[in-house]
Amino acid sequence: MPIKVAVLFERRAHEKRVAMVPAVADKLAKLGCSISMLTGAGLGSMLPDSAYTSVEIAATEQHLLADADIVLAVQAPTEAEINLLRPGTLLLSFIYPHKEPALTRLLRDKQITCFAMEQVPRISRAQAMDALSSQAALAGYYAALMGATKLARILPMMTTAVGSIRPARCLVMGLGVAGLQALATARRLGAITEGYDVRPETKEQAESLGAKFVDTGVDARGEGGYARELTPEEKDNIAAVVTKHIQQADIVITTAAIPGRPSPKLISKAQVDGMKLGAVIIDLAAEGGGNCEYSVPGETIQQGQITIAAPLNVPSMLAEHASELYAKNLLNLLQLCINDGAITLNWDDEVLAKTVLTHAGRIMPEQIKAALDN
Amino acid sequence: MPIKVAVLFERRAHEKRVAMVPAVADKLAKLGCSISMLTGAGLGSMLPDSAYTSVEIAATEQHLLADADIVLAVQAPTEAEINLLRPGTLLLSFIYPHKEPALTRLLRDKQITCFAMEQVPRISRAQAMDALSSQAALAGYYAALMGATKLARILPMMTTAVGSIRPARCLVMGLGVAGLQALATARRLGAITEGYDVRPETKEQAESLGAKFVDTGVDARGEGGYARELTPEEKDNIAAVVTKHIQQADIVITTAAIPGRPSPKLISKAQVDGMKLGAVIIDLAAEGGGNCEYSVPGETIQQGQITIAAPLNVPSMLAEHASELYAKNLLNLLQLCINDGAITLNWDDEVLAKTVLTHAGRIMPEQIKAALDN
Repeated sequence: MPIKVAVLFERRAHEKRVAMVPAVADKLAKLGCSISMLTGAGLGSMLPDSAYTSVEIAATEQHLLADADIVLAVQAPTEAEINLLRPGTLLLSFIYPHKEPALTRLLRDKQITCFAMEQVPRISRAQAMDALSSQAALAGYYAALMGATKLARILPMMTTAVGSIRPARCLVMGLGVAGLQALATARRLGAITEGYDVRPETKEQAESLGAKFVDTGVDARGEGGYARELTPEEKDNIAAVVTKHIQQADIVITTAAIPGRPSPKLISKAQVDGMKLGAVIIDLAAEGGGNCEYSVPGETIQQGQITIAAPLNVPSMLAEHASELYAKNLLNLLQLCINDGAITLNWDDEVLAKTVLTHAGRIMPEQIKAALDN
Repeated sequence: MPIKVAVLFERRAHEKRVAMVPAVADKLAKLGCSISMLTGAGLGSMLPDSAYTSVEIAATEQHLLADADIVLAVQAPTEAEINLLRPGTLLLSFIYPHKEPALTRLLRDKQITCFAMEQVPRISRAQAMDALSSQAALAGYYAALMGATKLARILPMMTTAVGSIRPARCLVMGLGVAGLQALATARRLGAITEGYDVRPETKEQAESLGAKFVDTGVDARGEGGYARELTPEEKDNIAAVVTKHIQQADIVITTAAIPGRPSPKLISKAQVDGMKLGAVIIDLAAEGGGNCEYSVPGETIQQGQITIAAPLNVPSMLAEHASELYAKNLLNLLQLCINDGAITLNWDDEVLAKTVLTHAGRIMPEQIKAALDN
């Protein structure tokens, strides 16, 4: 009996990604899986049914899910979808339990073994499963492009018959995966780039991409590769140095997101009000409310002559590549779960133990269990 | 008495440019001009009144225009504005007489000396006055950015923990100033670039920007730096070769505009229908109806899974730099007209003779006179 893998049709608004691409389906088939999806599930990522030669098209959601052993998704499934699953089914998806606690409780009660992709630990061995990073890299690239198209200036130096145009200045705040890609892309386009982060070890990375590092003297290294929350005094110290750099920038890209928590406000209204006319802020932390006090998640607003864009789900705007990378992340995680054509879960494996959200009727991470169990 | 220079408030929809920037105003002042504009005229280009230290803010349009010696504009003035001018006033502006013949007749009847900026001859000495070129360079840059943001893929090769993403392919059709900038910008972003033009001498220019040249064997060199119109047979020959390149591209940028004539259709509906899913066409020839049979000027449409954008007035989207370059083009032309603090027009100067549209009650270019005089 092959392992039955079902790929969900992503139904959430503005979600164009899909959890499976043809090349990954071919590899799963070789591992002993039969893969099913609904018609058109890949179209948002420019993948017609015909491209998936190793995938069977299921007639209905009931057919797709009722006997699935493994379910793959980008966004958390709906309650209706979860209710169609058998106990013990493996689910791999982004979940973000704090957003919809009822969903996690349902996964628990339906005895789904759910691996929440946002929980993949940030250790070397799990890099190839780290969907947050793969999606963030794309988001960072896109943020620089968005900044460039919303600016009424060009980024590169241009030599013309009437003289030279000076290159634009781009400041990136938050130098994780997204921030570094934003720096790299703005630099490709010819901008003068500056990087800023509370973690001093990012200095070298920024400089290796041709950017100048804004040094504020505050060290805010936290756990798990994220910055810790800062004290009010530290924030003031940083603001004093950073304000100058914000206010001489043409484009500011902010990427300081802390999963499950409100995004820190890195740019105050007062700082925006002192920016250059025509400057643009691209706030990649909109899912958590944004890094700029003026940001309106999901919208692009004009504040005086400053443009502030706080786009949601940026990886979906690059759905073809986002789906490709995400599907490969899933494949690498699945390879830990499938041995000799059968599902076997080794809970001594750090990656599985840290990524699992619900299993056998329990919410597994202590902190989330404490918050959600009732 | 200083020469009175009036800068028009651009009132046409979507026009953010302005014909004057502070640095150029300073230089005009030194030539013996007093410069006036209406409040807020520079705001679309992020230039508040306060930035123009050498410019006087006029209270009304009547004050601005009634005693002006020279009027500067980006888009052709309205009939109401022309009616406020004195006979003999110098006007420098884009006009495009075929679009609004009545306007050119009014300029003639009001005895305005109008230099139409789109008529600046393409000779070395006039390069610094060539506003079509300065604006086209910006449009080409922006077209590549538009293509990149509308594509659901990234342009550069990216090496990730789950393998490499291959670079996207960008084909630019029409290798004038705009096309070459589009090639350069797509290349900066990491795309594999290809250039195509009916003028074989563009091959070397494309290659110098890292692009491959699509050679079709048809030579279509025409007068004045533009391509001549092609015969149907030549078009078929080209289509056969070009179709392959169009259909393997992720982004196609077309720039084949012939001023005053409908844009040649370089991409047929059948060619679009065979393109890759998710491909993007940016049609910079929308002012003349577009280079693609599906193009709808001013709109971005979806044809199946292909995105076709045919934006109008692209330089206005980069208004800050577009205004800066345009104002410098005007200054360089004005320097031919102003000597020792007085306006003197030397009609033996090829640039002035070829750029003048109306003077002393006559339409000057023979071809336009034949079409419009009545």
